[in-house]
Amino acid sequence: MDHTLIRHSCLSVNLVQNARRVKAVPIITLLSDFGLQDPYVAEMKAVILSICPETRLVDISHEIEKFNIHMGAFILASATPYFPASTIHVAVVDPGVGTKRRPIIVETKCSFYVGPDNGILMLAAHKEGMRHVYHVKNSQYMLSQVSRTFHGRDIFAPVAAHLANGHAPSDFGPEIHDYALPESAKPCMKRAKLSGEILHIDGFGNLVINISREDLEKMGIREDLDFVVQFNGKTMSLRLCSAYGGVPRKSPLAIIGSGGFLEFSVNQGSASQIFSLKIGDHVFVSR
Amino acid sequence: MDHTLIRHSCLSVNLVQNARRVKAVPIITLLSDFGLQDPYVAEMKAVILSICPETRLVDISHEIEKFNIHMGAFILASATPYFPASTIHVAVVDPGVGTKRRPIIVETKCSFYVGPDNGILMLAAHKEGMRHVYHVKNSQYMLSQVSRTFHGRDIFAPVAAHLANGHAPSDFGPEIHDYALPESAKPCMKRAKLSGEILHIDGFGNLVINISREDLEKMGIREDLDFVVQFNGKTMSLRLCSAYGGVPRKSPLAIIGSGGFLEFSVNQGSASQIFSLKIGDHVFVSR
Amino acid sequence: MDHTLIRHSCLSVNLVQNARRVKAVPIITLLSDFGLQDPYVAEMKAVILSICPETRLVDISHEIEKFNIHMGAFILASATPYFPASTIHVAVVDPGVGTKRRPIIVETKCSFYVGPDNGILMLAAHKEGMRHVYHVKNSQYMLSQVSRTFHGRDIFAPVAAHLANGHAPSDFGPEIHDYALPESAKPCMKRAKLSGEILHIDGFGNLVINISREDLEKMGIREDLDFVVQFNGKTMSLRLCSAYGGVPRKSPLAIIGSGGFLEFSVNQGSASQIFSLKIGDHVFVSR
Repeated sequence: MDHTLIRHSCLSVNLVQNARRVKAVPIITLLSDFGLQDPYVAEMKAVILSICPETRLVDISHEIEKFNIHMGAFILASATPYFPASTIHVAVVDPGVGTKRRPIIVETKCSFYVGPDNGILMLAAHKEGMRHVYHVKNSQYMLSQVSRTFHGRDIFAPVAAHLANGHAPSDFGPEIHDYALPESAKPCMKRAKLSGEILHIDGFGNLVINISREDLEKMGIREDLDFVVQFNGKTMSLRLCSAYGGVPRKSPLAIIGSGGFLEFSVNQGSASQIFSLKIGDHVFVSR
Repeated sequence: MDHTLIRHSCLSVNLVQNARRVKAVPIITLLSDFGLQDPYVAEMKAVILSICPETRLVDISHEIEKFNIHMGAFILASATPYFPASTIHVAVVDPGVGTKRRPIIVETKCSFYVGPDNGILMLAAHKEGMRHVYHVKNSQYMLSQVSRTFHGRDIFAPVAAHLANGHAPSDFGPEIHDYALPESAKPCMKRAKLSGEILHIDGFGNLVINISREDLEKMGIREDLDFVVQFNGKTMSLRLCSAYGGVPRKSPLAIIGSGGFLEFSVNQGSASQIFSLKIGDHVFVSR
Repeated sequence: MDHTLIRHSCLSVNLVQNARRVKAVPIITLLSDFGLQDPYVAEMKAVILSICPETRLVDISHEIEKFNIHMGAFILASATPYFPASTIHVAVVDPGVGTKRRPIIVETKCSFYVGPDNGILMLAAHKEGMRHVYHVKNSQYMLSQVSRTFHGRDIFAPVAAHLANGHAPSDFGPEIHDYALPESAKPCMKRAKLSGEILHIDGFGNLVINISREDLEKMGIREDLDFVVQFNGKTMSLRLCSAYGGVPRKSPLAIIGSGGFLEFSVNQGSASQIFSLKIGDHVFVSR
């Protein structure tokens, strides 16, 4: 990683316009299921700043549900496209800490990912275009005492900081090809109905579904039109709106959310309180 | 905005003493009702750092009650006076996102505010002294794809970052004068009683009331004196203390809080658990 | 504090390997019981950046239980050893704010602590090696208007920022020797049983006990061996594992946690939901 490189966003150059061209300071982002009450996140930041003091630290989320790799992967993949090129993303949802699961670095066409080899990094990495995956083995880039309960602090944080200092990913260990892949849920057509599932429920109660704008357009479902939704034996009609304000206050609607996915929402209310749906539940969409 | 300017606090020069004179690095603060679990705050920070990499980012709060513009305005106006001059404050509590409500920049005598034209910025801006309000229309300062659900990321974050890069507020769009004003609650005298209302209940359970030290002094209520409080048909006597420790542990008291407002508190306890009051409730104060 | 000093970690030089030698930018950490909804943390950061704009701010935790000095001291002492030398730690859990309790600066062999003289700083400071304690009296390093409810913003934040600017701790007031000490709970042997107590319950539900690896080794309890635990009249056998994965999913285990203390845990589950124990409860350990 050459820090004298001019920084470009991971997004197409067009998306962020008029960015000034400056020398890049390394950015390290952090995602975990640690919460913010305990000292764990601060310990990771302390280790990073001890090794690479000029790092810019940005929290993505530390409120991932405990041990929920799927949720961590989704939140990570939502946020990382907006960061500048060469950002280093550390993600630690790690139920297998201290067992034989490997610590890895993923190098994509745009950035770097550091974390456990349990699939959490791969949804984001595939979006950007995978290049190489390395098994972190070189102990000179870890804390000298590695606990078996907190690799976030003892391995992933120092590895990210040494990457930020300019070490090549291949310095950390051998390339591997048998890394863990995430379970990915793609929607599928069954008898003129598109079957999707709930990927995420956000803090506003919006239900995010693994169906894209393109999926809907192929079925002829467009903005300002009603379409049919079935789940848990119920059938209802929803309007695909262009803004939450497209229906009266407290009314349900469908919308393409900011991540490009179909969402069930309620204008100034919570869809998760109205629809009885949870993550992983199936939803059927037709015209 | 001229970043070579020496930085002064928004507070009177006396308040922050002995500040060193250094070249200012731009500061952008963020306030929202997004919570910290979802990727939304990180996406805004990513966009800002892509456009103005040297920005200092400071979170004011992301735990504003969903859609509660009034609470957002109160928290924002509490914090912003302590920031250095030329700070750029972004506040996004935005139930009208994607509708016709306008994105605006407010230039005050001290700093800049970016957010929706729904009143959230105005309590803080009026405290500092309004100068100009601009309707953000120039799409070259927005992300090239603007969603209709997340203007925080697609409009407000890039606008703030371009301001931080030195663009003049007037570059972003035309000046307007018909911006939305917040409902402001001022206390009033009725038959020798001062009628106020609950503005905010903080995390300690302190009840913050829209009555200032000066309001109390005009009525002859001073520290170390008892006075009469009426609410919900109840009458009680409270002492105006100079510190929480002015009454025994777990006892109620009145105090002028750190924001200059009258507060009902409990020493090492929670007033919101003892007084049955909620935001907006009326309180009557007399000698 | 001389900022031209090369920065070393507070940990043994060996622990963080290959750190680059760079000029140190001041780091100020913040710990409090303020929560993240209210503007209080942001007001402290605003004051610090007004006085020492280049400060790197790192949050340790703002979710300390209200008024719980013991918990604040534990979290602080867990995190601070990982920060670079010369870091300035501000900790504000301060039920006595506005009373006669003194504001202090503690200078250790490695770093600086700023906060109230109620013991919160001393667990961390003793770990590093105490040097001097100063009573902060010099009002030129405080905000010019000091409230009696928020010394975090009005005294501790500006004091920390002036320390970061290079003022010597002795500039702030006289050295004192009668500072408050924390209640410290040390385990003790009673009839071949080691009596410890619950220090902390983390966000994963792990029960952290004031018994170290060395304490267990002296009793002949080693990894991969079962040992006997008694509490609340119950007796059970637990295995001292080297990783959470050493027992089946949802099974209880004992482990030396990342802070070096004995922990009762559940693999991918919550020990606090299985063991009926709370902070301060006693636990008896034998072979």
